[in-house]
Amino acid sequence: MKVGIINVTGYSGSELARILRRHPEVKIASVTGRSAAGQRLGEVFPHLDSLGLTIEPELSGSLDLVFSALPHKASAEACIPALHQGVKVVDISADFRLKQADEYEEWYGVAHQEPSLLEEAVYGLTELHRDEIRAARLVANPGCYPTSAILALAPAVAADIIGPDIIVSSLSGVSGGGRSLTMSNHFSEVNENAFAYAVNGHRHLPEIVQELNPLAAQPVKLTFQTHLIPMTRGILSTCYAPFSNPGDWMGDEGKQRLADIYRDYYSGHPFVRIAPAPPQTKHTLGNNMCLLHPVIDHRTGRLTVISCLDNLVKGAAGQAVQNMNLMAGFPEDTSLDELAVYP
Amino acid sequence: MKVGIINVTGYSGSELARILRRHPEVKIASVTGRSAAGQRLGEVFPHLDSLGLTIEPELSGSLDLVFSALPHKASAEACIPALHQGVKVVDISADFRLKQADEYEEWYGVAHQEPSLLEEAVYGLTELHRDEIRAARLVANPGCYPTSAILALAPAVAADIIGPDIIVSSLSGVSGGGRSLTMSNHFSEVNENAFAYAVNGHRHLPEIVQELNPLAAQPVKLTFQTHLIPMTRGILSTCYAPFSNPGDWMGDEGKQRLADIYRDYYSGHPFVRIAPAPPQTKHTLGNNMCLLHPVIDHRTGRLTVISCLDNLVKGAAGQAVQNMNLMAGFPEDTSLDELAVYP
Amino acid sequence: MKVGIINVTGYSGSELARILRRHPEVKIASVTGRSAAGQRLGEVFPHLDSLGLTIEPELSGSLDLVFSALPHKASAEACIPALHQGVKVVDISADFRLKQADEYEEWYGVAHQEPSLLEEAVYGLTELHRDEIRAARLVANPGCYPTSAILALAPAVAADIIGPDIIVSSLSGVSGGGRSLTMSNHFSEVNENAFAYAVNGHRHLPEIVQELNPLAAQPVKLTFQTHLIPMTRGILSTCYAPFSNPGDWMGDEGKQRLADIYRDYYSGHPFVRIAPAPPQTKHTLGNNMCLLHPVIDHRTGRLTVISCLDNLVKGAAGQAVQNMNLMAGFPEDTSLDELAVYP
Amino acid sequence: MKVGIINVTGYSGSELARILRRHPEVKIASVTGRSAAGQRLGEVFPHLDSLGLTIEPELSGSLDLVFSALPHKASAEACIPALHQGVKVVDISADFRLKQADEYEEWYGVAHQEPSLLEEAVYGLTELHRDEIRAARLVANPGCYPTSAILALAPAVAADIIGPDIIVSSLSGVSGGGRSLTMSNHFSEVNENAFAYAVNGHRHLPEIVQELNPLAAQPVKLTFQTHLIPMTRGILSTCYAPFSNPGDWMGDEGKQRLADIYRDYYSGHPFVRIAPAPPQTKHTLGNNMCLLHPVIDHRTGRLTVISCLDNLVKGAAGQAVQNMNLMAGFPEDTSLDELAVYP
Repeated sequence: MKVGIINVTGYSGSELARILRRHPEVKIASVTGRSAAGQRLGEVFPHLDSLGLTIEPELSGSLDLVFSALPHKASAEACIPALHQGVKVVDISADFRLKQADEYEEWYGVAHQEPSLLEEAVYGLTELHRDEIRAARLVANPGCYPTSAILALAPAVAADIIGPDIIVSSLSGVSGGGRSLTMSNHFSEVNENAFAYAVNGHRHLPEIVQELNPLAAQPVKLTFQTHLIPMTRGILSTCYAPFSNPGDWMGDEGKQRLADIYRDYYSGHPFVRIAPAPPQTKHTLGNNMCLLHPVIDHRTGRLTVISCLDNLVKGAAGQAVQNMNLMAGFPEDTSLDELAVYP
Repeated sequence: MKVGIINVTGYSGSELARILRRHPEVKIASVTGRSAAGQRLGEVFPHLDSLGLTIEPELSGSLDLVFSALPHKASAEACIPALHQGVKVVDISADFRLKQADEYEEWYGVAHQEPSLLEEAVYGLTELHRDEIRAARLVANPGCYPTSAILALAPAVAADIIGPDIIVSSLSGVSGGGRSLTMSNHFSEVNENAFAYAVNGHRHLPEIVQELNPLAAQPVKLTFQTHLIPMTRGILSTCYAPFSNPGDWMGDEGKQRLADIYRDYYSGHPFVRIAPAPPQTKHTLGNNMCLLHPVIDHRTGRLTVISCLDNLVKGAAGQAVQNMNLMAGFPEDTSLDELAVYP
Repeated sequence: MKVGIINVTGYSGSELARILRRHPEVKIASVTGRSAAGQRLGEVFPHLDSLGLTIEPELSGSLDLVFSALPHKASAEACIPALHQGVKVVDISADFRLKQADEYEEWYGVAHQEPSLLEEAVYGLTELHRDEIRAARLVANPGCYPTSAILALAPAVAADIIGPDIIVSSLSGVSGGGRSLTMSNHFSEVNENAFAYAVNGHRHLPEIVQELNPLAAQPVKLTFQTHLIPMTRGILSTCYAPFSNPGDWMGDEGKQRLADIYRDYYSGHPFVRIAPAPPQTKHTLGNNMCLLHPVIDHRTGRLTVISCLDNLVKGAAGQAVQNMNLMAGFPEDTSLDELAVYP
Repeated sequence: MKVGIINVTGYSGSELARILRRHPEVKIASVTGRSAAGQRLGEVFPHLDSLGLTIEPELSGSLDLVFSALPHKASAEACIPALHQGVKVVDISADFRLKQADEYEEWYGVAHQEPSLLEEAVYGLTELHRDEIRAARLVANPGCYPTSAILALAPAVAADIIGPDIIVSSLSGVSGGGRSLTMSNHFSEVNENAFAYAVNGHRHLPEIVQELNPLAAQPVKLTFQTHLIPMTRGILSTCYAPFSNPGDWMGDEGKQRLADIYRDYYSGHPFVRIAPAPPQTKHTLGNNMCLLHPVIDHRTGRLTVISCLDNLVKGAAGQAVQNMNLMAGFPEDTSLDELAVYP
């Protein structure tokens, strides 16, 4: 299968190249980048030198599937022509994630270019939409935060064991902000520092609500707060919600039952694991796992679920390849079974 | 005034020495350390070499006030004799923070050595107990997490504008775990990593409840979750609670009224500042400020308060000196007015 | 092929497990650890959970080859019995690296347990001893620093273009110090810090001299200074030496000729690359490459060679697997062709 | 005394403000910034909020002394008019450091605007030029690297105990690269990474040569290689040179004599200390010390001197204030006696 990567020069794009290199069924046939067109890929990313690719201004040749790793708006502009030419698309940007065009406009500040595609696009959180993804021609790969939050909360929401008052407090490594230069990824500003940002609402919020609500008995009331911390890769989300019936979750029995709900929900899903202890982002560095750990707070009758993943793998390029595997009929874990690099 | 520092060889102890060196009214007359007794202080901490002190096995000479920077249990053992000799004590450990001896035993796993002192001891969160501290002979310096959480929540709780369902999601730098060697402060394990810990209840939880409840219309129902992140100094607490009347906080007016409640509450307190933007731990590195930033989440009718401080300064040694200043009748900010080191 | 890993619970040991898991011809049949015997490997290292291994006190079952990742002295004690039972050994410790027993005793402070093995052992710097390694039953895997320094200097020394006055100034990430707890791997001591250590001579010095001297026209006069910097993985060595005939290296022609000498020397060696720009340790994170970049200092007539690698891969476990591949007749790069994880 | 800071919005400028705030004889009367003109200083740097300053496009009011923290070229443009108005100047840029205008042009790529000032300007390495600085109206503050290297080498060069073949291998924290946005201060590119840069000659090289040569028996032959490492503040320079008579430095006696040469050279200089063990950059974080540690390599007859300092304090703003103190007749250490913040 021949694939193209639009905007290989960002972190999601370069991570796609790293992962796809070991894919036995895929040939990376064309890669593009805006400012770096004409350069060898190895000049920009020495670790990718052995791929022998040259960065092009536009995709070239006949392709079976295209990944777009552009920012929103630019991504739709690049994906729509490809779709119209019959090429399958996995879009890592936010452009096809939200089902409502007005909601897209509200959060992203631009009108959507082809709202009819929003209905067709499948939200690419693989564990929730595996079958639809198999049949999709356009997959909207989820954001890194939503992947961690939705996977953490879906089992409890679907089992109707928690109320709607949900708080997601998330930490992100700096690579989540991309490769562009900003004060919030300047080393001297971020190192030995931690802070909350997007206090008036992060753009990933509506995705989380959109995906949880269909599973929920009543609409969730979500507070979602993001924080930047001094590491390169990793998302850690700590999710808080009240149990509907706190009395049901006493003792070891409650603990066991909760673990069972989580294990059952992700049974048959190779990239979600229920960890026996609070998981660490480093346990996912470079690999495609999402680790979950649900905890019962007996003092208050609340559920806490801790979730972590590598924002560039399960939170971006890895999940994109997982979705591509389904779309192409390959085993879901092809080229995704590498272990985390630890320490 | 002559002071002693018990266990100067930990991070709170060495930070006390750093801060007190510039105090015009204080002479550090004696410092102790367990394994390092007999060594010059500058051998253990080259940055403190110019103090010219030698580490002793036990305090010596006549002292007016003693700081204890020992771990709990050992600290009470060291402080009680000093108190009985008429020396004032600021204890940085947890040994005199909780008012109920049984609660102490529940959380710390040992019976308290002199429960009668629990009543006398003043909880040293300066902004809440300034007058009592002035008159105290035993001050129980708060934990680093509780300082950040209580300062963040007290104005809202006291103004009775939020309900009791409070969640405090806190991040800590590694120095909060002290100078002893453990896997959770091994560089290779912590660097490029983030994780939740103490998921079954952190020992700092009861302090927070103890201090908020007297201010509250109804007892708080607190979930308190701590996380370790790869930085040396700093605490960032993000606190979530529902507004009692969400409709009261609409628009710029609500925002202004909230800011006023916070500013009024800390009026006249030099070490708490209401920041106009989400504060960063780095803005407090090495100094005694606690920065607060309250935010209204209109979507859900919730209050979020972000709070940050340097765990070794306002969260430990700095607040201890602030308390000493009050106990001794010095201006509250003496030797505490240095700016943060940024970047 | 069935292999065992002695001391899987250190960083070299766990990295061996990570790399060997993807080896198509190897089954990890037995792993040992000192304090963790009886635990599942996944309890100690969650990222290795899927291997399904249990840590044993001693190796068990029939094995074809054993890796020892113990510290020196303990490693010889464990390797010698295995050798005597006819099992091949790759020892990652320093116990069989030096050819002279008295030199071993001088630097390591203990008499060697079986000096006759020192002659037989092959120094496992693959690029220098590939053929001997193929035939070896005991390979002494080089230290991380020597691997970087010898690979950087060998081409120039062998081509007889530099004089003997060599200075190697090396930087190491903290994982080079292992997983044991010491003040020099305490996060709060190492983060935001850099310092030289072992100023009176690092134990890796004699290996470097031993390997360079046979290539040299006259014995090298080596100063080797190590530094610790705040990162987990990576070695960066900057090597300085005077050109014998500075006039020979003028202009672009000199530059080209120097690059050719380096490229030719490592022609056919998949894990050494001559980089067109100063290489970064991050370009090798998690993979087995050593990147070299020679530079001519026209002002002074000196050669500078910059060298970097991942201390746990090419500097330890990766090179050990590379050696095992040769000993077993597998392609040299089997299970070692993963790209670096960047950023 | 009224001072102005040109370009307060860079790291040297903001550090000047932090240090001068505690100066009892100085009032910061005017501060400028290019893009931030009109903003309150506290908006750009919250930790400086209490200074109550507003950033101006140009200096205003009557000033006794001006610090320029602009980049080279722009700095000369700003300093020259001030000088002509009779205001004393401490220039932190490179514009007045080199005595030869053609050398300036060679390294900085622009012709010097007023070469006659090069002769008058005093190179502000305080320990070498204290008396000239007292009388100067224009002080060229040294670079951070040269401060560390010259202080490390001057005693040995002046005592004529080493030959001219000197190698300086230096490590820098990222703040040395300033507050502008570049790929080499992007957190994700620099964190968990180390690399050499400026392999064809760093601009700080000629300063080092210029200052050492007048002390030397014969011109030094200097190789100077810089490296970037993942920390914010700090310079660590390891300097290598051959002893002229290696036989003179045997045993403890040689060691003692070397230490004496260094101690004597800096006798009476409060900001250089000969450390008894290899110094750590963290021992200088936020303060004005340069720590030196000379070592004899008996194997090779070489001297190694390790030197460290905080690049923004002794390497920039701190030394600038030290120079201002001398120029104004204040005690040299006024407002510079704060201890390092450790850990």
